Amino acid sequence: MASPVRSNALAKNMDVDYVLVFRFASIDRSKAQEKLGNLLKALASVGLATEVRNGEKHSLLIFTKVASEDHFYGEVYRSRVQDWIHGVRSAAPEKEVKTALEADPLTEAERLRIIYQLITKPASEGGAGVSAKKGEWENVESIFALHDHQYNKAWIKRWSTQWLLKPEDLDDIRNRLGAKIAFYFAFTQSYFTFLLFPAAFGVLSFVFLGHFSSIYAVVISLWCTIFVEFWKHQEDDLAVRWNVKGVSSVETKRLDFRHEKEATDPISGEKLQIFPATKRFQRQLMQIPFGIAAVLALGSLIATCFGIEIFISEVYDGPFKSVLVFLPTVILTTCMPLLTGLLTSAATRLSDYENYETDSAYERSMTQKIFVLNFITSYLPLLLTAFVYVPFGTIIVPYLDIFSLTVKPFAEDEKQLKTPSANSFEINPSRLRKQVIYFTVTAQIVNLAMEVIVPYLKRQGFIKLKEMQSKKTAKKGTTGTPSPQASADLDDNAEEKEFLARVRSEAELDEYDVTDDLREMVLQFGYLALFSVVWPLVPVSFLINNWIELRSDAVKICIEMQRPVPWRADTIGPWLDALSFLSWIGSITMAALTYLFSNDGLGPDGTPSTVRGWALLLSIFFSEHLYLAVRQGVAIAISKIDSPGQQKMRRERFLVRQSYFQDSLKNMKVPPALTDAPPEKITREMLEDEARMGSLKSATREERFWARQRNWRESAIVGQNLIQKAPVEEGPDSKKEL
Amino acid sequence: MASPVRSNALAKNMDVDYVLVFRFASIDRSKAQEKLGNLLKALASVGLATEVRNGEKHSLLIFTKVASEDHFYGEVYRSRVQDWIHGVRSAAPEKEVKTALEADPLTEAERLRIIYQLITKPASEGGAGVSAKKGEWENVESIFALHDHQYNKAWIKRWSTQWLLKPEDLDDIRNRLGAKIAFYFAFTQSYFTFLLFPAAFGVLSFVFLGHFSSIYAVVISLWCTIFVEFWKHQEDDLAVRWNVKGVSSVETKRLDFRHEKEATDPISGEKLQIFPATKRFQRQLMQIPFGIAAVLALGSLIATCFGIEIFISEVYDGPFKSVLVFLPTVILTTCMPLLTGLLTSAATRLSDYENYETDSAYERSMTQKIFVLNFITSYLPLLLTAFVYVPFGTIIVPYLDIFSLTVKPFAEDEKQLKTPSANSFEINPSRLRKQVIYFTVTAQIVNLAMEVIVPYLKRQGFIKLKEMQSKKTAKKGTTGTPSPQASADLDDNAEEKEFLARVRSEAELDEYDVTDDLREMVLQFGYLALFSVVWPLVPVSFLINNWIELRSDAVKICIEMQRPVPWRADTIGPWLDALSFLSWIGSITMAALTYLFSNDGLGPDGTPSTVRGWALLLSIFFSEHLYLAVRQGVAIAISKIDSPGQQKMRRERFLVRQSYFQDSLKNMKVPPALTDAPPEKITREMLEDEARMGSLKSATREERFWARQRNWRESAIVGQNLIQKAPVEEGPDSKKEL
Repeated sequence: MASPVRSNALAKNMDVDYVLVFRFASIDRSKAQEKLGNLLKALASVGLATEVRNGEKHSLLIFTKVASEDHFYGEVYRSRVQDWIHGVRSAAPEKEVKTALEADPLTEAERLRIIYQLITKPASEGGAGVSAKKGEWENVESIFALHDHQYNKAWIKRWSTQWLLKPEDLDDIRNRLGAKIAFYFAFTQSYFTFLLFPAAFGVLSFVFLGHFSSIYAVVISLWCTIFVEFWKHQEDDLAVRWNVKGVSSVETKRLDFRHEKEATDPISGEKLQIFPATKRFQRQLMQIPFGIAAVLALGSLIATCFGIEIFISEVYDGPFKSVLVFLPTVILTTCMPLLTGLLTSAATRLSDYENYETDSAYERSMTQKIFVLNFITSYLPLLLTAFVYVPFGTIIVPYLDIFSLTVKPFAEDEKQLKTPSANSFEINPSRLRKQVIYFTVTAQIVNLAMEVIVPYLKRQGFIKLKEMQSKKTAKKGTTGTPSPQASADLDDNAEEKEFLARVRSEAELDEYDVTDDLREMVLQFGYLALFSVVWPLVPVSFLINNWIELRSDAVKICIEMQRPVPWRADTIGPWLDALSFLSWIGSITMAALTYLFSNDGLGPDGTPSTVRGWALLLSIFFSEHLYLAVRQGVAIAISKIDSPGQQKMRRERFLVRQSYFQDSLKNMKVPPALTDAPPEKITREMLEDEARMGSLKSATREERFWARQRNWRESAIVGQNLIQKAPVEEGPDSKKEL
Repeated sequence: MASPVRSNALAKNMDVDYVLVFRFASIDRSKAQEKLGNLLKALASVGLATEVRNGEKHSLLIFTKVASEDHFYGEVYRSRVQDWIHGVRSAAPEKEVKTALEADPLTEAERLRIIYQLITKPASEGGAGVSAKKGEWENVESIFALHDHQYNKAWIKRWSTQWLLKPEDLDDIRNRLGAKIAFYFAFTQSYFTFLLFPAAFGVLSFVFLGHFSSIYAVVISLWCTIFVEFWKHQEDDLAVRWNVKGVSSVETKRLDFRHEKEATDPISGEKLQIFPATKRFQRQLMQIPFGIAAVLALGSLIATCFGIEIFISEVYDGPFKSVLVFLPTVILTTCMPLLTGLLTSAATRLSDYENYETDSAYERSMTQKIFVLNFITSYLPLLLTAFVYVPFGTIIVPYLDIFSLTVKPFAEDEKQLKTPSANSFEINPSRLRKQVIYFTVTAQIVNLAMEVIVPYLKRQGFIKLKEMQSKKTAKKGTTGTPSPQASADLDDNAEEKEFLARVRSEAELDEYDVTDDLREMVLQFGYLALFSVVWPLVPVSFLINNWIELRSDAVKICIEMQRPVPWRADTIGPWLDALSFLSWIGSITMAALTYLFSNDGLGPDGTPSTVRGWALLLSIFFSEHLYLAVRQGVAIAISKIDSPGQQKMRRERFLVRQSYFQDSLKNMKVPPALTDAPPEKITREMLEDEARMGSLKSATREERFWARQRNWRESAIVGQNLIQKAPVEEGPDSKKEL
């Protein structure tokens, strides 16, 4: 920051488009050299210039940039024509490439996306076919673009001093990081704005209505429905605004797709790689045992910890109670990540096994599985407390003495382990509230810290460590054979030194996956939709959290992650279904919670044991169907709202239609004006005279039929005569005519 | 049939395309003459030839046919281009009109549709703007094409000797009567085929499982779901087969639409007639009071009759009981049509008031309202019996003594009117079964008779009456001033006599509305989905009924109705939603019925009073959510099925895409092959020598960065050197390298 050279180095990226990290630590050197040659040749073959520099820890940095702008413009044009054919663009690009680019200039995101595709597309589709960590290219560790630090700094500064994000801020993200990431920010921003009302209502509710207010439940459920439906509408609008509407139909083939047979379409001559849908369906059926296994594994872990916790905190009365209370937490924090990791890798393998043809189908399937896992880990503890512990606590708790095993070593006498009787045990109604507060406040803060602060500290620590190491090396003074740690930058040209150092540090960063952030938001929405009636301040907590989240995610992308590839998208994808699903489940849980805890944490009659099954189920039934009806209504009402995006689309469609229509009808003959004979003086006799009839005898019956009246005037005269001749009708009308 | 002249007259339609009936009975003669002139002029202006003949009872028959085939072909071409622009056709029609028509010949349906549109389109869109019974043209009573009797005869003969309809039969209907009617027949045929399984299962169930079998309920619910999802799929397929996919997006503006303001789109210059969506939404909100009013009115009528019936049949014990039993039926058959008629006209007025812009939106709104009315009248009696009478009968019946008023005049002493006590009254469990049998067998047969046989008899009666009248007239022998009844055919030319007589009789026929037939099928499906568990032979009855229905509808269209205008459609429209809705409700009622009557018409413990609310609700809850999950699964599974229609669409899309793509890329420059310098003998020293570095001093930093390695071979050599030079890593791998 101090010297102008450094800030210059930070700002300028040497015109580099992408950096590839080639790591040769694990393979034979001669093999590595051969592979490097192939890699560079492949890159050169698609018109990319390359420069090789030394990287960190047995790696090379391969810098690439577009060598021939002409060739590249051709690629851009091709991509735009493809978009147009798939209906993503409504107007066909200009025929002349240069004019087309001038009319619609490239954004940075479009440029980087097209270059990335140029690198990764298979050779058969005109790309270099290089993809990181896959098959032939397993030594290519990553492919990433360089951060634009000047822009990033300005971005973070702008956002941190601004209360609300404007549409232009989102456009900016779309131009820099692509529509997919922009959709995440747009969603979070939209959600944040929508939270203002429930936050205000929550505070009022907290003060005046108390917990478990049915009014609050209804308002929040309604709000969740409106938000989900509104977001669908807004998503559509943004897709049009960002010219990505329908982009999900431009499918990219998955590189890992394995076809079973190959067929040639008899008519199009297109080669088809086929994997039978029935076979895939059979494989997809494996999702059912997977789901059951996940529910059982995670469920039993959570239920066990839950049981131990209740046993220790509410039944056990021996020594070390204050320490033992943390036992379930310890079990959870050690076993849960392990189990989740296991299940996630099982989910990945299952998705791989299902062998999807396109990236989007794969991602959809993966997202569904991840959502199931997250649903269990996030909501099951609360569901257990609300719907098992409270209504059935007195029945279940006596059986919890199996957990006395866990505390046996610490118990001093049998009395401390005595089986609790149903009478002595009392349900702790504040347990649910405490849990909700934990999940919606504490966990959110912890999460934020884990996401931003911890990695920051880690990086700072690494930098410190490195500095210390290089100091040590410098002390040793062995410049001839450099030590492994310091080797990377020894050969660097002086004027590239700063730049290369920066690239090396960016190469060490993680890849950003926007799905994780989206998942976090969707799960947060779930707490609101499912449980916020327990503690009406939930939306307030989320409002504050999301304001910070939006900014901290920007910081995360700028500092802690490699610059993401600017993918396009026209939706937040399967997460949208998750939102709908959560708000639906919410209509059930909110009704059930409101009924179960209607007397401030106790049942309707003061004790939870007198909950009536039919009343509970009836309130769920009504709430759910009311929800479904309202959702339908809200969806219809929102679909009527006209938006700038829809207007834009309509306008473009109209123009395209008009030009086509005119084009197509240009060479159509103008219909001849119908010969309209001049009104002769004609009488009925003249018209239908026998002479004409006689001359027509030779013609067909049809010709004679149509020749009786030569044009509309003759028809009119005949008809008028018929009207005149018509017999007088008997009735009140006919008298008038007489 | 006997004389060849007659059969000839039946067969040939004198090349007539459409007949307009102009009725002048209600207006002044001079006015009628003027209007006739205008009408004929309007028709002539769009290229139609006209002939006027005398009609029945103060009406004229205006025969029209296309005068200039060239002009008409232009219209056809224009319509096809429009289709192509809206995406209905995937390939653009040939530029040359004649070639286009040769490549894709006109079907009769397309011809008649385009001529009909030519007659009815407003003048601003190039039509004559004549529409029956509207505004200026209120004297135009009907516009209809003439039946092709030869074809009709063959059609009926073919169908009545054929067990199953083949796809070609449906294609034939589409070519003759248009896709909209063909969709009705396709749906009914599909439904008929699907009924085979539940009919067989129903018989087995009837024999082995008895009534209210939960197995039967599950199987039928599953079947209903599969059928609805399958039909969606098949509908899509047929739409592609019939080239009507997406035809609903080619919206025709409703003639009755009244705009509130007019605006010009600033960019497209298109004139927009606007009716604010918010205002329409406000008007649509009136549907809620309308729905409530309909439920209350129809519901109270049905409930009253229901109460009276129970009172008389099960409580009352006085004289005339056998006659009085029919009292509720009499009330229903007199009041119900009256009330339904009232509500239908209210629904029509409400739909008019909602002021839709397009015909399809109007139709959708109307269908929804009609469906609500029909839902109540069809299913409420059964719902009352199942869910009010059986569970709450013993509580309600004592209050039914208010109905004693209805029988008071007949009662002989007070005892016969005694208030029934809860103890003495016993629920009649066979009542529900009897009712279901009535609705699914008796009512279907009555319906069929009303549709086909009664109109046939009526027509025969009319013909007889006419013959008698004309005989009377002939006896009188007053040929000079013809009597009103016989006047129409007196002036007829001898060779046209038969033909005109036929046209006059067709002019008297009703217009066919396919919606009525569709509604009938959907409501029938409702009985199956909602109540068939009561009596497992329901599907057998429907199977037989629908075999006849398919044929009798063909007869109805051929004989009892005017030839319908061959409209296009790509779906059965809002009825599809009705089907989904019914199968959903079915999942609730089937579960509830199975639980309520699980002990063959009595509650689980032998008496219906011990039904447990929570168990009932729980079974409904499970059944409904199982249904929703299964529906999702079935929809996904069915969407995977490849069909000929989808293949056709894919192929066409591919061809279009290919041709566009090639067209667009033709004038794109071929990218210059990357200059690949011949491998010189180079050493690292040569490459990065100081001299070159020196000469580069003048260039920018970026230029110097990229100039260090001139091409990929140089990059490769530098990289390979770096790999060679890399320090040996400490670890098991490095040892091998040493």
